[in-house]
Amino acid sequence: MAKKYLLAPGPTPVPSNVLLSMAQPMIHHRAPDFLPILESAREGLKWLFQTKNDVLILCSSGTGGMVGAVTNFFSAGDKVLVINGGKFGERWTKICQTYGLKVKEIVIEWGYSVKPSDIESALKAEPDIKGVFIQAVETSTGVYYDVEAIAKVVRRFDNTLLIVDAISALVAHDLKTDEWGIDIMVGGSQKGLMLPAGLSFVSISDKAWKANERSRLPRFYFNLKRERENLIKNQTNFSSPVSLIIGLNEAIKMLQEEGLERVFARHLRLAHATREAVKAMGLSLYSKESPSNSVTAIMMPEGIDGQVVYKTLREKYGVTGAGGQDKAKGKIYRLAHLGYADTFDVIVGIASLEMALRGLGYPVALGKGVAKAEELLMM
Amino acid sequence: MAKKYLLAPGPTPVPSNVLLSMAQPMIHHRAPDFLPILESAREGLKWLFQTKNDVLILCSSGTGGMVGAVTNFFSAGDKVLVINGGKFGERWTKICQTYGLKVKEIVIEWGYSVKPSDIESALKAEPDIKGVFIQAVETSTGVYYDVEAIAKVVRRFDNTLLIVDAISALVAHDLKTDEWGIDIMVGGSQKGLMLPAGLSFVSISDKAWKANERSRLPRFYFNLKRERENLIKNQTNFSSPVSLIIGLNEAIKMLQEEGLERVFARHLRLAHATREAVKAMGLSLYSKESPSNSVTAIMMPEGIDGQVVYKTLREKYGVTGAGGQDKAKGKIYRLAHLGYADTFDVIVGIASLEMALRGLGYPVALGKGVAKAEELLMM
Repeated sequence: MAKKYLLAPGPTPVPSNVLLSMAQPMIHHRAPDFLPILESAREGLKWLFQTKNDVLILCSSGTGGMVGAVTNFFSAGDKVLVINGGKFGERWTKICQTYGLKVKEIVIEWGYSVKPSDIESALKAEPDIKGVFIQAVETSTGVYYDVEAIAKVVRRFDNTLLIVDAISALVAHDLKTDEWGIDIMVGGSQKGLMLPAGLSFVSISDKAWKANERSRLPRFYFNLKRERENLIKNQTNFSSPVSLIIGLNEAIKMLQEEGLERVFARHLRLAHATREAVKAMGLSLYSKESPSNSVTAIMMPEGIDGQVVYKTLREKYGVTGAGGQDKAKGKIYRLAHLGYADTFDVIVGIASLEMALRGLGYPVALGKGVAKAEELLMM
Repeated sequence: MAKKYLLAPGPTPVPSNVLLSMAQPMIHHRAPDFLPILESAREGLKWLFQTKNDVLILCSSGTGGMVGAVTNFFSAGDKVLVINGGKFGERWTKICQTYGLKVKEIVIEWGYSVKPSDIESALKAEPDIKGVFIQAVETSTGVYYDVEAIAKVVRRFDNTLLIVDAISALVAHDLKTDEWGIDIMVGGSQKGLMLPAGLSFVSISDKAWKANERSRLPRFYFNLKRERENLIKNQTNFSSPVSLIIGLNEAIKMLQEEGLERVFARHLRLAHATREAVKAMGLSLYSKESPSNSVTAIMMPEGIDGQVVYKTLREKYGVTGAGGQDKAKGKIYRLAHLGYADTFDVIVGIASLEMALRGLGYPVALGKGVAKAEELLMM
């Protein structure tokens, strides 16, 4: 009867009502009973993305949306700028290179954020850069990039698009797509949206649609123009993943009942409590700058292997967080507070970490981190 | 309290135990509790595909698997042969052309099958054809192509791969991947496998893996070599659609309990009864040759619009079959007997069609088709 707790930065827990909504009998995606569901999900995504533009729904993991964001707006030989500050920045580079784009990178030390002024200098030095690819939250380091300030820079360059991987940021961070001028923003289902993996979402500005007309890369499964033509008819281009879209609609309704401002405030509150609790335990954050509200990356004490912490928490306590990836592997442990997350998820995350670290020989005062979290979460 | 019946050739009904298996609490796709599930699903797919090779699992609709079957094994300028006898043959052509392949087509009149000897002549005339793309079942016409005979032809050409879209055929037809020499076979979740849309499956022969080494088309999301490397570790390359894979495992277990031979026999029995019932009603099949065991395409009588029949059945009787696509639109009505289908699905399909047609003025003797179906399904 050991209970399990999922505190990873994706997949995140799926609320029971969402799980059960997806267990409804199958309906046909081209038939009238599905059309209002897709229409409602489509409107809900516009609300969540804070955009008047359509948000396309693709049947893929988030990476599929990232591929679509490259292949629909650029051509081989186009020069683009990628902000590479972790595993997912690297992914932008790999996708762009796969399709023959010329990639300039601003490489950020893991755990740090990008300076908007560095992007500005790069764009001024090479005005033929056609796209700037960033993460909103770089999941591997737990860092939030200042999307608003970056958008302010990029939108002054008429021939440059801003493409934001918001897969881990969406729902946790206030991202004003239209107001800030984000041209293409990508989301995924298994993060803030509290769903299983299987859907990605892409919003596209008018400026980006103009680039789409010039783009000459091959695309078939992720053909976003065709998806737009279909979405306006409340259809998807290919067979809709009906159950996931029913769940999407249900999850968005939950967020709408809470209200967007309160959703963001909740994530900030949980993230802040987690960060302060971690510090109260004598630990430091891996994110040296601008830690995200989605996931907290925690430096492990000298001599303690983050992977052992991760495994101990899973096996002994039933708590699944995440270890580090690539060069951060072993050095960190990551606790998410994303999507279907509340006060006592933070308490469980911190309490279990105290217990695991103490068990592994780190002299934490049991309850100290929890006390700090309680204090902050009483407000 | 009007009950609903889904008798379309995808999505098909999802059994309640499969639906509920997918409503389990979310687990992490990189954590040990998921690995045995993926391993079991992977072994089950090998059993279903009748192959010793791995069957890759992609997070996409079936079309994503089709794209992967093109982009991983060919290069721009390669000459390929597409058998185009309907909407999905056309899709092979469009995908191949999107990626710069030179497509030769054997165009088949809708409702007919391809002659293996025509494929042989084409390959002899142009021995530089590197791939032959076919459907096992062309869903738009309800026709099954003779995959065994076609494979016998193609495997004599050392430099030519046989690629089979088995999306609508899998589970309904006995497709002996290894024994016949099918190089690449594509399946999808929302058909015979009784799942929601969201997964595609691709089996790959050694001969095809050799072609993969020479292939120079760009691929990232559907990079099958990377998927294979991950699948061997019981992982997928990107975030697994965990809930669908749990459902896949459950659905395959149901098929395994029945046994492969009995699964195929059941589909043949249901298809045969449907076809004979349709003839007993004085109607004819749209599939002039080799009607499939997945779906029966029924010619509508003179003066009766297939779309009106489809709508009447949906709205008045709660039965969702399928109308015709593209040039068959209005001319036909399609009844599937695919996946989670049994005797009384055929009875409901035929009875409702009799009632709808009689209501629309076609002088069918009520119960005549049903009587024929009963007679055949008593055996």
